[in-house]
Amino acid sequence: MGKTLAKSPLAPERFPDLPVIAGAEFASVAAGVRYAGRTDVMLARLAPGTAIAGVFTRSATRSAPVLDCQAKIGGASDAGAAIVVNSGNSNAFTGRNGVEATRAVTSAVAKMLDLPEGRVFSSSTGVIGEPLPHARITAKLDELKAGLTEAGISDAARAIMTTDTYPKGATASVDLPGGTVQIAGIAKGSGMIAPDMATMLVYIFTDAKVAQPDLQAMVSAVSDRTFNCITVDSDTSTSDTLLMAATGASGVSVGADDRAFVEALETVMLDLAQQVVRDGEGATKFVTIRVTGAASDADARTHAMSIANSPLVKTAIAGEDPNWGRIVMAIGKSGAAADRDALSIRFGDIVVAENGWVSPTYKEADGAAIMKQAEIDINVDIGLGQGKATVWTCDLTHGYISINADYRS
Amino acid sequence: MGKTLAKSPLAPERFPDLPVIAGAEFASVAAGVRYAGRTDVMLARLAPGTAIAGVFTRSATRSAPVLDCQAKIGGASDAGAAIVVNSGNSNAFTGRNGVEATRAVTSAVAKMLDLPEGRVFSSSTGVIGEPLPHARITAKLDELKAGLTEAGISDAARAIMTTDTYPKGATASVDLPGGTVQIAGIAKGSGMIAPDMATMLVYIFTDAKVAQPDLQAMVSAVSDRTFNCITVDSDTSTSDTLLMAATGASGVSVGADDRAFVEALETVMLDLAQQVVRDGEGATKFVTIRVTGAASDADARTHAMSIANSPLVKTAIAGEDPNWGRIVMAIGKSGAAADRDALSIRFGDIVVAENGWVSPTYKEADGAAIMKQAEIDINVDIGLGQGKATVWTCDLTHGYISINADYRS
Repeated sequence: MGKTLAKSPLAPERFPDLPVIAGAEFASVAAGVRYAGRTDVMLARLAPGTAIAGVFTRSATRSAPVLDCQAKIGGASDAGAAIVVNSGNSNAFTGRNGVEATRAVTSAVAKMLDLPEGRVFSSSTGVIGEPLPHARITAKLDELKAGLTEAGISDAARAIMTTDTYPKGATASVDLPGGTVQIAGIAKGSGMIAPDMATMLVYIFTDAKVAQPDLQAMVSAVSDRTFNCITVDSDTSTSDTLLMAATGASGVSVGADDRAFVEALETVMLDLAQQVVRDGEGATKFVTIRVTGAASDADARTHAMSIANSPLVKTAIAGEDPNWGRIVMAIGKSGAAADRDALSIRFGDIVVAENGWVSPTYKEADGAAIMKQAEIDINVDIGLGQGKATVWTCDLTHGYISINADYRS
Repeated sequence: MGKTLAKSPLAPERFPDLPVIAGAEFASVAAGVRYAGRTDVMLARLAPGTAIAGVFTRSATRSAPVLDCQAKIGGASDAGAAIVVNSGNSNAFTGRNGVEATRAVTSAVAKMLDLPEGRVFSSSTGVIGEPLPHARITAKLDELKAGLTEAGISDAARAIMTTDTYPKGATASVDLPGGTVQIAGIAKGSGMIAPDMATMLVYIFTDAKVAQPDLQAMVSAVSDRTFNCITVDSDTSTSDTLLMAATGASGVSVGADDRAFVEALETVMLDLAQQVVRDGEGATKFVTIRVTGAASDADARTHAMSIANSPLVKTAIAGEDPNWGRIVMAIGKSGAAADRDALSIRFGDIVVAENGWVSPTYKEADGAAIMKQAEIDINVDIGLGQGKATVWTCDLTHGYISINADYRS
């Protein structure tokens, strides 16, 4: 945490221009929760009538702020709302102290912004098991309130970073019969990334008018195809949180089966999810794993995740070694149905293996050329049925070891 | 594979003196299957009346020799038997060619030693997906036969090594009412190690007289408490094989419920299993994870394996960082029952966390001192029930990346 990490070679060229989302204002400050010389708390204020939906880690040891958000989500209210997030300390596994620290922050924000406490959502990300110095956050609330601005979302993306090497943002706009609506999202995350849901914090804002149950249905469904399809290291955080706020300020109504809106939302969520993988700790390769022909979609996902999480597959990719035998190994161990002699494996468009053995047309030099690329497609057909899944991951490098062998020191 | 790896710092001081097992002879040769300048094929000849039992990988993509062994195990026969093993090439995912290569080797051995083909068992370990140059092995069979000796087991342990940095052997003797029996075992394995069963080859020999079904019952039960309780990297081989041969040459009969024998066998199998972990690729720490108080033994094992396989836990240990928050994370993500506020965690005897938070008596310096040791005990009580499990693992280091990022080159 103390070190400055070099920007990931897989990072997007630049942070996108995020549009103003009417009804949403943002501010960020340097509260010194843990880091010095940078912002580490962000506040979002949302207009009355905003619907809030969320998706959270299923960890059995989830943090106090996650439990607090889960208890508050879904409540009907026409009041405004707020989201307050700190980096540097996750307030996870902090016992009763953690519950009190969460309440100290959310109740202070509620009082300051004149909101019901049930409409103030908080997240914390960083070290586990150390008491959250909540007074450092509440001491900065006046400064945060004074700084609220519709243009503040990009700075907010920076305030929530931990080991991230770049801030993450994505946006889309949707032309609907009633008018145009905007979607803008920010995320943080680079390690402890695995489904249920990918370890990270994600905040998405739209000026569309969406009923809370519809918003929840959309966010849950799209998460399954985006954030729950990425993995860096198979480790799942105790703090995973995705919150989406629909302010309704555009006056344009959207329902759960509004296809254009769902597609735009999926674009934003997939972009953010892939940006998290691209910032995977130590990552030098961005890997797309497509499994087809499995007995079911669930089996396809099990195979894809087994490949994506295999340390031997990930180190082979790091070494630019087209070691397809390790892919066979990962399929074999996954527990999902497979038949050795029905498998086929392609690196990009190159057929590597089929019918239980290396393809007669395969040349190691062709596989090696694919492996030298920064973006690698691994395509596996199980040969048993119609099930399919796509997951995204990165390689496992010396950089991952260097970052994680002394995170706290 | 081309490189010579430094001997693991966790290796036993020396290879044990393995006793002669009456009725078992061994030979090894350099056949040049893949490696130059070392032995790479071993042959064991077993006396008529020998019972053979086995445990194998459950991988859906297991190798031709594994399938061949599984088809042969359990057949009743008074004939002698043989085990032939090569390193350098696993003959896995080699299609019909693999089946033919296995048959070429086993039928040649059967003919040479005048055995039924169903009594010749083979294993292959090494690179996946390349044709096994079986003629190089069969060309050496006469030399192997000429070299058979009761004293050859230690050389056999060397012939089966791949990325192992030391040969692995263990032994025990058991005084029974009918006389003393000997057990001796050898193993190879250092990466692609995870249960079902730990990725490796293991051959155990005894001069006890054991009926085949009893031998199988013992080996299966003890495997579950030994080889299936170790993990290096969560990756499971397509070639995992454990074969046990009971020659009966001592004339001392043993049954499946003969406690002294089972205990001695467990000593040997646990010793070999732990030696595999101690040779884990890049390992610098030997880690014992004991989980108690889980809702069931199965839940305890799920938690223990989740901790043992977590890249973030393993890198923290590599960095000598007493980062108990990552243990909480691994318990939370395991899927087994847990209650954050009932958990307690000890490093050795030091209470680190209890009741959902760091212990008031815990000092980071104490945890750090434990982490500096080469052998580390992590004890977790889930606080829910009586389930317990112990697993053994190692840390995840730069050495693992270095070894596996260019295994084939």
